[in-house]
Amino acid sequence: MAQVYFDHNATTPVDDAVFEAMLPYFQQEFGNPSSRHSYGTAARHAINRARAQIAAVVGVQPVQVIFTSGGSEANNLFIRGAADSLKPSGIFISAIEHPCIMRPAQELARRASDKWVVQRLAVDDQGQLDLEAAGGILTKQKSGLVSVMLANNESGVIQDIASIAEIARSHGAWMHTDAVQALGKIQLDFTLLKVHAMTLSAHKIYGPKGAAALIVDKRLLLKPLIYGGGHENGMRSGTENVPAIVGFGVACELAHSRIEKTAQHVSALRTRLEQGLHEMGAVIFSSGATRLPNTCYFALPDIEGDTLVVQLDKAGFAVASGAACSSVNPGQSHVLEAMGISPILARCAVRVSLGASNTLLQVENFLKAINHICTELRRMNGIVS
Amino acid sequence: MAQVYFDHNATTPVDDAVFEAMLPYFQQEFGNPSSRHSYGTAARHAINRARAQIAAVVGVQPVQVIFTSGGSEANNLFIRGAADSLKPSGIFISAIEHPCIMRPAQELARRASDKWVVQRLAVDDQGQLDLEAAGGILTKQKSGLVSVMLANNESGVIQDIASIAEIARSHGAWMHTDAVQALGKIQLDFTLLKVHAMTLSAHKIYGPKGAAALIVDKRLLLKPLIYGGGHENGMRSGTENVPAIVGFGVACELAHSRIEKTAQHVSALRTRLEQGLHEMGAVIFSSGATRLPNTCYFALPDIEGDTLVVQLDKAGFAVASGAACSSVNPGQSHVLEAMGISPILARCAVRVSLGASNTLLQVENFLKAINHICTELRRMNGIVS
Repeated sequence: MAQVYFDHNATTPVDDAVFEAMLPYFQQEFGNPSSRHSYGTAARHAINRARAQIAAVVGVQPVQVIFTSGGSEANNLFIRGAADSLKPSGIFISAIEHPCIMRPAQELARRASDKWVVQRLAVDDQGQLDLEAAGGILTKQKSGLVSVMLANNESGVIQDIASIAEIARSHGAWMHTDAVQALGKIQLDFTLLKVHAMTLSAHKIYGPKGAAALIVDKRLLLKPLIYGGGHENGMRSGTENVPAIVGFGVACELAHSRIEKTAQHVSALRTRLEQGLHEMGAVIFSSGATRLPNTCYFALPDIEGDTLVVQLDKAGFAVASGAACSSVNPGQSHVLEAMGISPILARCAVRVSLGASNTLLQVENFLKAINHICTELRRMNGIVS
Repeated sequence: MAQVYFDHNATTPVDDAVFEAMLPYFQQEFGNPSSRHSYGTAARHAINRARAQIAAVVGVQPVQVIFTSGGSEANNLFIRGAADSLKPSGIFISAIEHPCIMRPAQELARRASDKWVVQRLAVDDQGQLDLEAAGGILTKQKSGLVSVMLANNESGVIQDIASIAEIARSHGAWMHTDAVQALGKIQLDFTLLKVHAMTLSAHKIYGPKGAAALIVDKRLLLKPLIYGGGHENGMRSGTENVPAIVGFGVACELAHSRIEKTAQHVSALRTRLEQGLHEMGAVIFSSGATRLPNTCYFALPDIEGDTLVVQLDKAGFAVASGAACSSVNPGQSHVLEAMGISPILARCAVRVSLGASNTLLQVENFLKAINHICTELRRMNGIVS
């Protein structure tokens, strides 16, 4: 079992304080929030408290928070829910979006009855959206929806969402950003981002799996993905996952309160990490772009990423060879492809995503481990060839 | 705060053994199941174990289990997912289905591009599906989907799903049953029920909120509701809620192992309860039908249900005035309406749903409390009138 966890963009352990806050809602305050007795009322209050906590962190009203079971559901809710409230036109998404934006968009375009067209917005070799090209594409076709992620899960590159949102608004489109990777790592303000909708998730910020939210501008027309008892103002039916929602609220507050301290800490670790990797001849992807402070996406040009991940795991380090969410469907990273990285180099990609509990000693040991593994792999390759 | 919980059809507390099994997955084995390192592998194994546990309880192969975030999502997945794989025709649902079947069906019928028609299958005054009438209706219109719940959440009435499934199959329709209320209360076997799909949920069987499943016949064509990374064989994307799924697996096994003992216990309590209620002049709904052993749905003809629920809560008893899931949208019970119960009597409906931990003493005290509350309410009404 890997003992050093360097994969915080995939998921995070639940923070002690978050877990503590969730605990009573499994066995004591276990009521269904829709029940009218006091068990129900207690659960309803807990959800409302979490809603207010999350709203405060991103600068919105509690009524703008729609709880979902995860980021993928929230992203699907925006794409399908907003599209089904509009006449078919264009859906503009960046070429580096997560599959849970890309695939529902493609699915809409595939529906025989509709005429939705999906347009990809290109990124440069650093993974940054080409704003000028985006403006040009949006001018050519009537646009309904625009979705660009705030920070990329693989490269950590942060986009200038406010500028993209201005372009989207000038074309009358609804603007969405997937902020799942950004939450807790950089400051987030719904109004400053100028978006109409934003996706957040708990399990990337030391909260539990099973809770996320779509934050919406009240003017956004949306159809539910899940119909039923009319929960979440009719926008998402189903008994609320009370403990997970409670944990999400607390995790949001904690992440917000620790954001600068954590950013400084992981940023310093990353500087040392990238210095060491650079000395080993690694290519650091997107190093010329504004990135999340915790993410390092690199390649050692003669070492396959998957092999390195497996060897590092044996050596006690958990890292990723691309996005965990796509690891069930392995293949080349579409993010690196969009950046024009050669398939040969892309096969060598490894992602380290640091967390608050990581230490400089762990980074030093990691560099030693990589050095050792690479020497061994090169020696074996030398013998084989 | 109510101290005696008589609302187990709304939700249940997490069982100690279930909670125990979930615990390691919040902070120690917290990995993303899609990650390739050992944290990921451990989480993947945990999910596969739960999948096998649930599959075994209902007599299917693990690959037939699609995990979702809840029963509402699973029901929506069947209705929308199966409909989107067919040419529009008829959706046949019972008049007493949960809103998370009714509303997605109605929404399909509302879509301008499609020609889906929703047909309600009637129930008799005991809440039992009229099989002959159902056969007649299915003959009149080309049928695509049929969905009838195995046990009703309000009345507890159990339908003869195998017979309905035979009718559905003879008309070439896909047959689904919402078995959320039946699981853990009566024996369930996917094959014996002759359905193509079945919904199960964890939080009604002393498992956690946030985990449920759609069990499917492998021949059923289904489109996902949530697209993305391709989890659950492409049928439901999104990072799996590992602790909740682990809890669901254990809760399923436990419920299955205790099913007869619990049924005998709650059945004896209900007999005493209904005897007492009968003596007070209560109408017991569906008492002539085969019901879940734990559910008692009754009305005291001159006492409003909502008032009784509030007074009972103050007296320390948590009961429901209809379905918790619809309590966010109060109104008359559509179940009682379908049974032809007068709106005046329906307003007096109260549901008691017993659990394994309830005792005869609690039932005796409950009867005394109702007697006392009714006397008080009648006295006050007498003064007022």
